[in-house]
Amino acid sequence: MIEKIFAELDNAYPEMVEIRRHLHMNPEPSFQETKTAKYIRDFYEDLGVDIRFGVGGNGVIATIRGGKPGKTVALRADFDALPIQDQKETSYKSTVPNVVHACGHDGHTATLLVLGKILHGLRDELPGTYVLIHQHAEELAPGGAKPMIEDGALDGVDVIFGTHLWSTTPFGRIDYRTGPIMAAADRFEITVQGRGGHGAMPHETVDAVVTGAQLVTSLQQLVARRVDPLESAVLTIASFVAENPFNIIADQSKLNGTVRSFTEETRTLMEQEMERVAKGTAIATNSDIDFKFHRGYPPVVTHEKETEFLRDLAEDVPGVEEVFNCPPQMGGEDFAYYLEEIPGTFFFTGAMPDGEVYPHHHPKFDFKEEAMLIAAKTLGKAAVTCHE
Amino acid sequence: MIEKIFAELDNAYPEMVEIRRHLHMNPEPSFQETKTAKYIRDFYEDLGVDIRFGVGGNGVIATIRGGKPGKTVALRADFDALPIQDQKETSYKSTVPNVVHACGHDGHTATLLVLGKILHGLRDELPGTYVLIHQHAEELAPGGAKPMIEDGALDGVDVIFGTHLWSTTPFGRIDYRTGPIMAAADRFEITVQGRGGHGAMPHETVDAVVTGAQLVTSLQQLVARRVDPLESAVLTIASFVAENPFNIIADQSKLNGTVRSFTEETRTLMEQEMERVAKGTAIATNSDIDFKFHRGYPPVVTHEKETEFLRDLAEDVPGVEEVFNCPPQMGGEDFAYYLEEIPGTFFFTGAMPDGEVYPHHHPKFDFKEEAMLIAAKTLGKAAVTCHE
Amino acid sequence: MIEKIFAELDNAYPEMVEIRRHLHMNPEPSFQETKTAKYIRDFYEDLGVDIRFGVGGNGVIATIRGGKPGKTVALRADFDALPIQDQKETSYKSTVPNVVHACGHDGHTATLLVLGKILHGLRDELPGTYVLIHQHAEELAPGGAKPMIEDGALDGVDVIFGTHLWSTTPFGRIDYRTGPIMAAADRFEITVQGRGGHGAMPHETVDAVVTGAQLVTSLQQLVARRVDPLESAVLTIASFVAENPFNIIADQSKLNGTVRSFTEETRTLMEQEMERVAKGTAIATNSDIDFKFHRGYPPVVTHEKETEFLRDLAEDVPGVEEVFNCPPQMGGEDFAYYLEEIPGTFFFTGAMPDGEVYPHHHPKFDFKEEAMLIAAKTLGKAAVTCHE
Amino acid sequence: MIEKIFAELDNAYPEMVEIRRHLHMNPEPSFQETKTAKYIRDFYEDLGVDIRFGVGGNGVIATIRGGKPGKTVALRADFDALPIQDQKETSYKSTVPNVVHACGHDGHTATLLVLGKILHGLRDELPGTYVLIHQHAEELAPGGAKPMIEDGALDGVDVIFGTHLWSTTPFGRIDYRTGPIMAAADRFEITVQGRGGHGAMPHETVDAVVTGAQLVTSLQQLVARRVDPLESAVLTIASFVAENPFNIIADQSKLNGTVRSFTEETRTLMEQEMERVAKGTAIATNSDIDFKFHRGYPPVVTHEKETEFLRDLAEDVPGVEEVFNCPPQMGGEDFAYYLEEIPGTFFFTGAMPDGEVYPHHHPKFDFKEEAMLIAAKTLGKAAVTCHE
Repeated sequence: MIEKIFAELDNAYPEMVEIRRHLHMNPEPSFQETKTAKYIRDFYEDLGVDIRFGVGGNGVIATIRGGKPGKTVALRADFDALPIQDQKETSYKSTVPNVVHACGHDGHTATLLVLGKILHGLRDELPGTYVLIHQHAEELAPGGAKPMIEDGALDGVDVIFGTHLWSTTPFGRIDYRTGPIMAAADRFEITVQGRGGHGAMPHETVDAVVTGAQLVTSLQQLVARRVDPLESAVLTIASFVAENPFNIIADQSKLNGTVRSFTEETRTLMEQEMERVAKGTAIATNSDIDFKFHRGYPPVVTHEKETEFLRDLAEDVPGVEEVFNCPPQMGGEDFAYYLEEIPGTFFFTGAMPDGEVYPHHHPKFDFKEEAMLIAAKTLGKAAVTCHE
Repeated sequence: MIEKIFAELDNAYPEMVEIRRHLHMNPEPSFQETKTAKYIRDFYEDLGVDIRFGVGGNGVIATIRGGKPGKTVALRADFDALPIQDQKETSYKSTVPNVVHACGHDGHTATLLVLGKILHGLRDELPGTYVLIHQHAEELAPGGAKPMIEDGALDGVDVIFGTHLWSTTPFGRIDYRTGPIMAAADRFEITVQGRGGHGAMPHETVDAVVTGAQLVTSLQQLVARRVDPLESAVLTIASFVAENPFNIIADQSKLNGTVRSFTEETRTLMEQEMERVAKGTAIATNSDIDFKFHRGYPPVVTHEKETEFLRDLAEDVPGVEEVFNCPPQMGGEDFAYYLEEIPGTFFFTGAMPDGEVYPHHHPKFDFKEEAMLIAAKTLGKAAVTCHE
Repeated sequence: MIEKIFAELDNAYPEMVEIRRHLHMNPEPSFQETKTAKYIRDFYEDLGVDIRFGVGGNGVIATIRGGKPGKTVALRADFDALPIQDQKETSYKSTVPNVVHACGHDGHTATLLVLGKILHGLRDELPGTYVLIHQHAEELAPGGAKPMIEDGALDGVDVIFGTHLWSTTPFGRIDYRTGPIMAAADRFEITVQGRGGHGAMPHETVDAVVTGAQLVTSLQQLVARRVDPLESAVLTIASFVAENPFNIIADQSKLNGTVRSFTEETRTLMEQEMERVAKGTAIATNSDIDFKFHRGYPPVVTHEKETEFLRDLAEDVPGVEEVFNCPPQMGGEDFAYYLEEIPGTFFFTGAMPDGEVYPHHHPKFDFKEEAMLIAAKTLGKAAVTCHE
Repeated sequence: MIEKIFAELDNAYPEMVEIRRHLHMNPEPSFQETKTAKYIRDFYEDLGVDIRFGVGGNGVIATIRGGKPGKTVALRADFDALPIQDQKETSYKSTVPNVVHACGHDGHTATLLVLGKILHGLRDELPGTYVLIHQHAEELAPGGAKPMIEDGALDGVDVIFGTHLWSTTPFGRIDYRTGPIMAAADRFEITVQGRGGHGAMPHETVDAVVTGAQLVTSLQQLVARRVDPLESAVLTIASFVAENPFNIIADQSKLNGTVRSFTEETRTLMEQEMERVAKGTAIATNSDIDFKFHRGYPPVVTHEKETEFLRDLAEDVPGVEEVFNCPPQMGGEDFAYYLEEIPGTFFFTGAMPDGEVYPHHHPKFDFKEEAMLIAAKTLGKAAVTCHE
């Protein structure tokens, strides 16, 4: 059966490329992907696949019921683009100003659509049920995953698989990892409100530069002393802005930055400790410190059994040359929410192009399209064989 | 003799006001005071007073030789205005956009011109010689005092007196102080050059925010630990600017601010210690730190004997209600250079207006004109009686 | 009259030396000066002078009423010694182990006793009343001045004068100063209570070394930013103690040190700000910080009129070669309490010995005895002439 | 064959206990284990096993040559005790005051001796060669492993296995980990030499408390900013000692502590960065800072292939209930040196006693003796089956 799926995917590869390029030329930014959603709906409706439209927003869910008993398996592909101007020169470059698929979600969608078509064709011989989650708005918090889940996307689902085509991972490599594979990427803003005054009269002021500097130093100690050394955490103060004439003591300083972590415990710890430091520093310096912590997505934490299952099956997928136990990535993904609900795993499919390589979100980003075939085969094999 | 001078000054008060208002309506910024200089020259030439024109730039020096033996006494008045838009509503408001006498130098000039006229009229009966230094460019470092001195302004001068009309000191009060009466006001600029990078990859960067914060904290300790507690010093970091997206580690931060002190020893100590801290912090953090220290004027340090002389004589000047031993001011004045060369003193003449009071350099600054009369009488008495 | 007093003092100088040496050989530490108190009492009783004994502890007050009208003037001399072993080799060295007059209070007492004897002898010709305050326990806070005042020492007194023989001031010089002449010398103790643990598990601990270090840094900023730059303040953290095996995170750190200041405002500010910093740091670090501030004596702040009076009269005292406007001293004195109650002044009488010079409290401290005569004449002249 | 070894080990368990208890009652501290070394020598000599005595100090190596071809496999057991007073009450408690086997090395030795005896008995049927490394001085850096290796302990050896009985790991569990399983545990000492002085005269001193505090704060930032967030590192300043009277500014402060890390790169980075911070802080503060970094053992880094081999074989060892992928331990072990030279792995054998559990190095430490049997079976199976 797997061999048959692999063969049909090979045959359908031109269609996959065609779909991907169509989407690439017609990108839509997060939460505005209405045409893309209709494109997906139409694709499935033409095939006669059951779909739910408008799930949790622009989400689309196709359901394929196999002829044999088995688990209910979800596969997920996101389909939003980014508010960036396409700067590469290809026949399929974006036709929409300032919007481009610079993260490969077009490829994810093409992969899943074609895989879905083939699974639908073979459904009578397949075990279990296949829930194909086409998710909108991965790029912009609070994201599409959460509302789709709230709208029933995972109801009755036993296990979920997802992948990300990755332009900086060698083509032919599958990167897996048990546990945290992508970080929680949170953001914070701090306003230190002192009391300005003449540069020669510090005693009549509350110096927002000195207070801000003290805060920077104190916050750095959280990573060193409050976080378990076996856990990872980063606290970066990206900006420190207090601009004044040379003889004026600063009234206000504004700091902002990011916190990265791989467990809910660590991110909650960081948020609480930062708040504590802000509060204590305000008291110590007689200033007002406003601290805002904006949570991004949680860490993507894969499940051990499903990850090992994926790792083992990937070894024999045609085109896969290496299955690599990768270190975690510091970026975020709202696939995290699915894995908070049900077992499953998330992996990277190496898609490094042959020529110049650009990182994700770069205006010249592109990926090697053959990687879609590897992604489709790996997801397909996982979906079809996980019932045993 | 003094009584005669006082009486003539009283008579000439309307002229003093007229001159002041003329100058007020026709202000010129520092180093561009050519019309004012000519006005001063013409005033003296009309009287037949000896003058030197273009001294050290736009400076003008009038010399009056008394008929009796005595010292050579200098009196100094500055005559530049400020690049500020006049915002007060008076009949004599500035007619020049964005330039105004917001520090009272118009009053200083009117005071000295009228006093000079009277001294000239009485010259045969007066002891000694009177050098009237009309100085340009007090407001903008490096100032006019230094080049005027280099151009001979103090040649043969035994003693110098100067005053500043002061809008926040009560009318009727003379403020004197032995030793430092105005601060050295220096300026510094620091550029911390780190190495920027992704907010989640601190180990590949040199964080210019963390380094800048450390520098702020270390610099604060100089005042607390390196300066003699019986000396005054202020080190203010007015600006701290490193502006980046929330997930980018700062490549660079820029700090600037001011140092105030009352002795050459303290300002030199501060400059050297700041340089040391910058150098050590650069090594400790593996960053490049560029430190620039721009010296403003030295502290104005009055001489004891001349200050006590001034204090005592001021008691009996008509209109003076209080002679006050004032704390030093944190602002700077290039009168400092004269007192580095010869004995003398500098004092504040209370000129607080009756209504709303605005500090010097404020767009609505004004002063009580009667204070010019007190200044003239005090300077005149000092000049005429210091020969005894 | 003054000349007569000067002459009698000259005649009585040998007695002054004798008394001083007797006291020097029989020193008693603070609050234990019972024999010295009796010695003073007996001295006055033998002369028939009115005394009060046991004033506020071991204090003794002699009162001499002049035959003419005038003010009530107090003169004060302290009489306690120090718990130090005398290490000098003189005929009059201390006979008591570990107790010595290493601060010159023996000289103060001899000076006042002999002056009192002479004033008593001349009382019929003298204006006013003379209150001779022989104070115990100057060396040990809370001191003897406060309880003596509470026990009526200053009742009815109009003005007070006091001096300190000073071994590091040249003989023949009188040091005066208007305003603060000696500092408030306070002491603080801080205990940082964290939670110890294994050196490799910082996240399970609250690190008392890191917290203590942060406190040190924050406290330094108070002098730099919270204190008026025209005021003096010192905050010294003398000790930082947290001793542990190299792989154990500190449970506790103990800090102590001193604060010096010259005004009640500054010392109160420092205490409050230190408390604020301790409180804020405890919150920021999740530790307990116990902060204790032990007030020593207030600053000795002389009154302007009385100080100028003293300065002027000292010029003509025989033996006085220089009357010097001295910078303030960082040490403390409970004479401060008298000047909080009534007008007066405090001055230093230069008593530098001819050979080796040791500072006060040194085991080899001594002073030039002729300085007692200058002190007696200056105090005597002040007391007798202040009625005019 | 394995079954036969397991059966013989079961039979020999009473002897294992006997040996362990004998060693437990006769402990010797690191580098002084001469009697224990002779005991081991005699044990093997009685059996006729080839041994080398005095290898790299007190080390003993027994070599057993199997009758069939195969690899040369090393097994290692350490045999030194600790300078701690035994505080437990057992029939076999230490008879030597202040020395006790509080880390289980007695068990390691008994395990290997009995396993060696059995392998020797079965040698004709066994493949390969067995190098039994009885190592002295594991507890005290620089340790016994290094000199034993230098003295040829690993010559011709293909692979090595070692285990640690672990009192806080449940009995029946084997803990393995690929990569770093135990940390590098380094130690540092810092002396800040300032210039002491009177507490009121900071400008005449270099304050060793303020400088030390600054150093603490700067060092904390290394973990936060210089170390890859995906790597672990701990920098603990355990002691900060500067003890002075409350009014004396500290001349010197002494800091010491530990650094833990899991890769050579990280520990080298930490050492270099600490040195940089010390150097820069010395310059910034005008103090002398002496920094000494004492390297302990390197991290114990297991090899992937051998670790997975061990993990898989351990599943079927009688008595093993769980094979656990453990987090790394922050403690150190000189087994690290063997794994720097040749492939192999190191694992923990759960030995939690039934009653009260004490951590290693605790005066009441003990372990469950049946764990020796599991250790022997696991090591034996690894040694005998790794030739395939």
